[in-house]
Amino acid sequence: MEGVNQLKNQKYAADIDSIKEAHTRISPFIHKTPVLSSTSLDSISGKQLFFKCECFQKGGAFKIRGASNAIFSLEDDQAAKGVVTHSSGNHAAAISLAAKLRGIPAYVVIPKNAPACKVENVRRYGGQVIWSEATMQSRESTATAVQQRTGANLIHPFNDKRIISGQGTISLELLEQVPDLDTIIVPISGGGLISGVTLAAKSINPSIRVLAAEPMGADDAARSKLFGRLITLSDTNTIADGLRAFLGDLTPVVRDLVDDVVVLDENEIIKAMRLCYEVLKLAVEPSGAIGLAAILSDQCKQKSYWKDMKKIAIVLSGGNVDLGVLWESLK
Amino acid sequence: MEGVNQLKNQKYAADIDSIKEAHTRISPFIHKTPVLSSTSLDSISGKQLFFKCECFQKGGAFKIRGASNAIFSLEDDQAAKGVVTHSSGNHAAAISLAAKLRGIPAYVVIPKNAPACKVENVRRYGGQVIWSEATMQSRESTATAVQQRTGANLIHPFNDKRIISGQGTISLELLEQVPDLDTIIVPISGGGLISGVTLAAKSINPSIRVLAAEPMGADDAARSKLFGRLITLSDTNTIADGLRAFLGDLTPVVRDLVDDVVVLDENEIIKAMRLCYEVLKLAVEPSGAIGLAAILSDQCKQKSYWKDMKKIAIVLSGGNVDLGVLWESLK
Repeated sequence: MEGVNQLKNQKYAADIDSIKEAHTRISPFIHKTPVLSSTSLDSISGKQLFFKCECFQKGGAFKIRGASNAIFSLEDDQAAKGVVTHSSGNHAAAISLAAKLRGIPAYVVIPKNAPACKVENVRRYGGQVIWSEATMQSRESTATAVQQRTGANLIHPFNDKRIISGQGTISLELLEQVPDLDTIIVPISGGGLISGVTLAAKSINPSIRVLAAEPMGADDAARSKLFGRLITLSDTNTIADGLRAFLGDLTPVVRDLVDDVVVLDENEIIKAMRLCYEVLKLAVEPSGAIGLAAILSDQCKQKSYWKDMKKIAIVLSGGNVDLGVLWESLK
Repeated sequence: MEGVNQLKNQKYAADIDSIKEAHTRISPFIHKTPVLSSTSLDSISGKQLFFKCECFQKGGAFKIRGASNAIFSLEDDQAAKGVVTHSSGNHAAAISLAAKLRGIPAYVVIPKNAPACKVENVRRYGGQVIWSEATMQSRESTATAVQQRTGANLIHPFNDKRIISGQGTISLELLEQVPDLDTIIVPISGGGLISGVTLAAKSINPSIRVLAAEPMGADDAARSKLFGRLITLSDTNTIADGLRAFLGDLTPVVRDLVDDVVVLDENEIIKAMRLCYEVLKLAVEPSGAIGLAAILSDQCKQKSYWKDMKKIAIVLSGGNVDLGVLWESLK
């Protein structure tokens, strides 16, 4: 319970109050996404599964929650100079969309290996695309240069209190939609989503279990949790393009409060994505399907907490997938 | 209003009473499917669109409505001998599933050109597959032979009062979910779905418009309506595998009450399927997407009723698509 005591001391970048404030602020701009269930997947998993469909969110992913919270909390004079961010895709589109809703410019640094459909989304919402190399260093230095040139407000994709608070609104909805959940499974990349979800969920129900699902080819969160300090990798290799970032220093929630990190290989991720498509009839991107992969994995069945998990929410974080990528992965 | 007067005289195979009875009978076994909307597709179409998501129905398509109505209305001694049907897929799976729920055998005649995923669904639900040639004649004679051998009750995929009544339950839900619709667009094949939907909808609101959407490569309904008598084709050619059947003689509702038939080419169907996937984030089969194709078509914009259509429901009839078929069609 050490973690929960820390939670009460509000030592993290966000807390239940900032998350509730975010919810009030962003509610006019986002969807309350539905929760779906499937008899077939319950039967396959032996659990009761509840799918929080952020693939139906505005812009096709949960990212609009944090983005609209950040953008609509800016003072008018600050907002007028616009916003800048760097992102592999869904955050970029969300920033563009939220900026469009507020009527301010969005400068978006995108790594060259981002999926085409996500870049299209940025352009559709009126974001100005600035290319960088794929490395985090290149993304960050390019964004800094834009910031200096324009005076725009930097909205980091995950290492930002406003973002963490916005993403946490998922738990407010989820625990209203399915109040007696015992577990929530969340994809992990930079840690913004899972930090917000965990802070809100454990404030409402301290005994709820939060599991992170991470690709083996970008398993910095699992390693960081194991060693108790932030560990970054020299490279990442996964089809889950939304999960290639590394944990930020504003996300110690993962160390303190997230119960476990389940690591999945590429086949497990692809199989889960296929089940989303064929059984749930949902277009879910690889990053979005990883939570289902976790609950279906042999690894998860060997955990001490497996038998205690009965009613499990899986956050399907987004649905922006190139059909070409989908098909190639399924061959 | 001639059609609506005929409706009051209850000259059709089903009526609002048989449809309400069906709804009571099948409610324990089916999903009340959600209605989704999309700002992007409203913007593209210039209309307010409401998508009735039968892709989320049990078995992945609306067919369980009619199948469960037919099977659960059988007397026990009749039911014990099982049921037999012929179908290109979704009806076959639905009959198998409903028979399994009732604990009786299902004999399913499937044409050799049916999609693999639909055949798998039949087997998953415990149906016994009997192959036939692709022609309707071969399907029917094979089914008759099984019927004579087993004493099973024949449940035709569309030309059957129990089926038409079951499919009509869609309108009961839809007009409760979006009461002030002015138009419903429904895929048309054998006519069971649209007959049930039309009879229920026009009983509740006589001024509602019902449009059929049909592939150019299987346009027997459009031709039949034009000439005022049943016309069958020598062959069909369309990716929409669920829409290859011809109108049955129990479906004069199409002649009398359906307001118009919109005919779509293959590119229009495929484009609509892609939009379902990329914008709605829904896995919808080609037959299921044809209603969206209709509202986006140039043909529809030239109709006299175009300007009167404001709030339009589109029945997304099913989501059982082979991923291989999907991909090949999008190249």
